[in-house]
Amino acid sequence: MTDLASLIDLIGAPSAVAADEARARQGILTKPTGALGRLEELSIWVCSVQGACPPRVFARPRVVIFAGDHGVARTAQTSAYPPEVTAQMVLNFVHGGAAVNVLARQAGASVRVVDVSVDADPDYALSIAPEVVADRIRRGSGSIDREDAMTRAETEAAFALGRRIADEEIDSGADLLIPGDMGIGNTTPAAALIGLLANADAATVTGKGTGIDDTTWMRKCAAVRDAMRRGSEHKGDPLALLTAIGSPDFAAATGFLLQSAARGVPVILDGTISSACALVADRISYRAKAWWLAGHRSTEPAQSIALDRLDLVPVVDYGMRLGEGTGALLALQIVQSATATLREMATFGEAGVSDRDA
Amino acid sequence: MTDLASLIDLIGAPSAVAADEARARQGILTKPTGALGRLEELSIWVCSVQGACPPRVFARPRVVIFAGDHGVARTAQTSAYPPEVTAQMVLNFVHGGAAVNVLARQAGASVRVVDVSVDADPDYALSIAPEVVADRIRRGSGSIDREDAMTRAETEAAFALGRRIADEEIDSGADLLIPGDMGIGNTTPAAALIGLLANADAATVTGKGTGIDDTTWMRKCAAVRDAMRRGSEHKGDPLALLTAIGSPDFAAATGFLLQSAARGVPVILDGTISSACALVADRISYRAKAWWLAGHRSTEPAQSIALDRLDLVPVVDYGMRLGEGTGALLALQIVQSATATLREMATFGEAGVSDRDA
Repeated sequence: MTDLASLIDLIGAPSAVAADEARARQGILTKPTGALGRLEELSIWVCSVQGACPPRVFARPRVVIFAGDHGVARTAQTSAYPPEVTAQMVLNFVHGGAAVNVLARQAGASVRVVDVSVDADPDYALSIAPEVVADRIRRGSGSIDREDAMTRAETEAAFALGRRIADEEIDSGADLLIPGDMGIGNTTPAAALIGLLANADAATVTGKGTGIDDTTWMRKCAAVRDAMRRGSEHKGDPLALLTAIGSPDFAAATGFLLQSAARGVPVILDGTISSACALVADRISYRAKAWWLAGHRSTEPAQSIALDRLDLVPVVDYGMRLGEGTGALLALQIVQSATATLREMATFGEAGVSDRDA
Repeated sequence: MTDLASLIDLIGAPSAVAADEARARQGILTKPTGALGRLEELSIWVCSVQGACPPRVFARPRVVIFAGDHGVARTAQTSAYPPEVTAQMVLNFVHGGAAVNVLARQAGASVRVVDVSVDADPDYALSIAPEVVADRIRRGSGSIDREDAMTRAETEAAFALGRRIADEEIDSGADLLIPGDMGIGNTTPAAALIGLLANADAATVTGKGTGIDDTTWMRKCAAVRDAMRRGSEHKGDPLALLTAIGSPDFAAATGFLLQSAARGVPVILDGTISSACALVADRISYRAKAWWLAGHRSTEPAQSIALDRLDLVPVVDYGMRLGEGTGALLALQIVQSATATLREMATFGEAGVSDRDA
């Protein structure tokens, strides 16, 4: 049985002292105060989560992709792509050929992929990357428009797995974490969770996902509506909600987000899936989101609704809708730049530059 | 006498063939078509200006800061900072302590600073970095609310200097250029130029610069209005306009922008000053802007007006107002990421991933 109370107790607030020091330091760097705009805010947040000023440029940012299939994609055909793509993309991640791999290299991050609930025989990965399938919770998930995604025991196991993975990564030196996602059909449970928790209706939260046509959108919308109806009685119990209309990969990402906060390690959220999980996690601990930054604004309407609910403002907005962690990795580059300015810029005194009051 | 006709003849169009190849390649990479949003558009632009697909990640991006003082800052007191800061900041750039230096290191770019018209005895730099002051056109500029910024001969010399610097950098291997700026008071001529060329009134284009108070803003607004009145008769002659209400550093940046286009080397524009110069350069050659990308949206109202006029959409929008090249350097990281995805991602065929039509 998951001990949520103990987990909640572990989640503290980022350092207000370090944030104040950062604000003061921004005022003596060789530029007009405020001239770096949002970069200054980001640098202050980095100091608060690192508990130090000047801040350190993140040395080991790490993406963990939680992969899983979704029964609803097969039964209600809510996606433009066949479910086989999930396992194929897991191998693409392992081989370094996906967008997330390229953007991680650009941002100086590394990528781990975990098959939480892919609907494929584990053989697909055993000879290539056995560690990827070593922790699988179950094969696929129930079709949430008509049945539970999984059992309560599976939810708790997946949640614990996400927490354990956060611990493993942090113990190995990760100083910033990004939850990535892969799963054909995964915007359907995300939309249902966000719709329920943000009190938005199914048509408002249902988007085009990877690029579906209008007929598929109507089917998806009906599935989201049915799932929301099934989930409504569990709004007050986040783990029961994940059991009913979530999925194992979502439960793992939710545990990952909360454990990162408990360990005091910052997270950059990615798109629709990590925003949905953040909204669920926020119901468990309202203090956790201080450790999270919204990486990007996706084209999925549900994601913007979730970010509004969390009062998080995305760092980039490029009309992206890929998931995997890609949006967060672009934001990471901006965060690193913001951090570097606060750390490396000369002060007025050091550079012999006259301040406006001189 | 500047031979603009020959320069205009040298400016061609980026490669439509490479752009088409890039569009086609985006369609076979392991992601839904369009899922990388603006990154896909940026990668297509990069292919068009490189004339190649797949594109190369830029190997030697280079910032050139054109520094100059503005007589109007002293006579009309339009800035929050004393003019001495311009020379002090030039030395800060040389020593690597300014925001542009930090962001250039983050983006893998290098920085050169050129004193085009700083209002200080050249001694300030002679013992530290004599090359910085070797090409100075004049000391400061005329107060454009009441007199010409410089003589026509000085305008032509500064314009030629900017072209020569572009040639030097490109001949030394620069494959992407960023025009930076430094000059207390420089948003005053920028506002006047943009106001005139975009048909906007002085109050609309006059912003808060480095952070002036309301009284200073009213003085600045009057100076911009007077400068616009003085410049209005030269709207049809860009070099005469720069002579009347520009400055040597603006003339140099304008020549730099056009020569880069003539050499087929892409440029990322920065903030208000490079946008003003781009608007002037666009009057000389309407084909040049195909080689330019708008790096960021500044808080200065004139800059957004200039970008609208040029039909350029900025890559980042962080409420920045520092200049130097800082906004363009953030955009550069996004451009490099976009380029890397198109270059390095696996195709559906290579990765054995099913496409939606499979």
